[in-house]
Amino acid sequence: MAAAAAAGRRTVVVTGADGGIGSSFCKHYASKGDQVFACRRKATPDASSLFDNNPNIHVVDGVDVTMDEGAGCLVSALEKAGSPKVDVLINNAGVMKRDRNTLDIGVLRESMEVNAYGALRITNTLLGKRMLAAPGAKIILITSKMGSMADNSSGGAYGYRMSKAALNAAGVSLAHDLKGDGMAVAILHPGWVRTRMTGDSGLVDTHESVAGMTDRIEELDLSNSGTFWGFKGDVIPW
Amino acid sequence: MAAAAAAGRRTVVVTGADGGIGSSFCKHYASKGDQVFACRRKATPDASSLFDNNPNIHVVDGVDVTMDEGAGCLVSALEKAGSPKVDVLINNAGVMKRDRNTLDIGVLRESMEVNAYGALRITNTLLGKRMLAAPGAKIILITSKMGSMADNSSGGAYGYRMSKAALNAAGVSLAHDLKGDGMAVAILHPGWVRTRMTGDSGLVDTHESVAGMTDRIEELDLSNSGTFWGFKGDVIPW
Repeated sequence: MAAAAAAGRRTVVVTGADGGIGSSFCKHYASKGDQVFACRRKATPDASSLFDNNPNIHVVDGVDVTMDEGAGCLVSALEKAGSPKVDVLINNAGVMKRDRNTLDIGVLRESMEVNAYGALRITNTLLGKRMLAAPGAKIILITSKMGSMADNSSGGAYGYRMSKAALNAAGVSLAHDLKGDGMAVAILHPGWVRTRMTGDSGLVDTHESVAGMTDRIEELDLSNSGTFWGFKGDVIPW
Repeated sequence: MAAAAAAGRRTVVVTGADGGIGSSFCKHYASKGDQVFACRRKATPDASSLFDNNPNIHVVDGVDVTMDEGAGCLVSALEKAGSPKVDVLINNAGVMKRDRNTLDIGVLRESMEVNAYGALRITNTLLGKRMLAAPGAKIILITSKMGSMADNSSGGAYGYRMSKAALNAAGVSLAHDLKGDGMAVAILHPGWVRTRMTGDSGLVDTHESVAGMTDRIEELDLSNSGTFWGFKGDVIPW
């Protein structure tokens, strides 16, 4: 680990790390020697087995992105680890509610709280605590092409679409607002990935999706901050 | 009024009708002989003077779009007037919070409740009660170019931008979902209008803005449903 630090060991935070895309992100960065904070909402029995006790991965439980206390759990974990500056923050936690009543405002609210406000709560908390590396930090918003108006040819999915569109709007503002601090923002569509969220249907496996997205994260800099990319690198129309 | 009815007198509902763009919409349609339901959140002392006791305008108080009871006030007023089918629903009520702390989640929530969920609550309530003319009804979402990701070159304004982007996303889904019922949806940017919301600054007066937007509403049909237009008719990139 000392060697990894000398070689530029980064600190990476991933929310929604208890499966699917989130745990794949954690494993990817841990395999590079980075220090990863894998944030999960709840402790689950398979906590350690999920990451095979990988010494590069700190599992942080209680990070419910819809609560200030959830953000507080992440702050505490970073402090306990010596308050390393976060180099890559991956706001991955999200929900897709299957609402039969497509305009149920309760569903809209729940979707927004997790998918849009949740990412901003974590980001803003770390910014406020000066826990993001400045300059150089990369803030990643895992959003969806379903939040694209240009791509919406089938309607429905109000809660999911609205919350992802709202997150995209925030991402563009963040990109502008953080440029002066040398921080860059990527707005990423992971593809239609076979995970629990999709009922294991989908066109892409998590490995392929995360391999693509981590390539995008490497390419991210201040010149392309605020871009909406698919995992393969295609720029997605808003 | 009998002549107006024979000539195709329409029923028009306008939310946020207590000033600025909203009251201009009401006066416009009333001047055409249409029956207008001018919905306001609260009764104000100048209730009648606002519309000079125009017999074509029903003032409906208590239409707080953030509450089911608010939507109920509109339903009651329509029932009291003999339940005419609504031909044009103009979801105009909106707020722009001036938040110094640009990522205050309370501000995000308040903005979303009015600007996005509010419009959907009114629309969905009238749909559920079969109070919109089918086919033929036009559902108008007064949104803003500030909800455009493509147009965002200055950042900030999280609550306003996110809520308008979310409303735009919902508008595109509504356009798809209501096409089969013969209802069309317009997503309109009123321009930067001199109103209370803008502190009477702005580039356009309400008359010019509303004249443009009512032209767009006349042009709206199923072939262009779901388009994001500026008041002058320019198609705005998402």
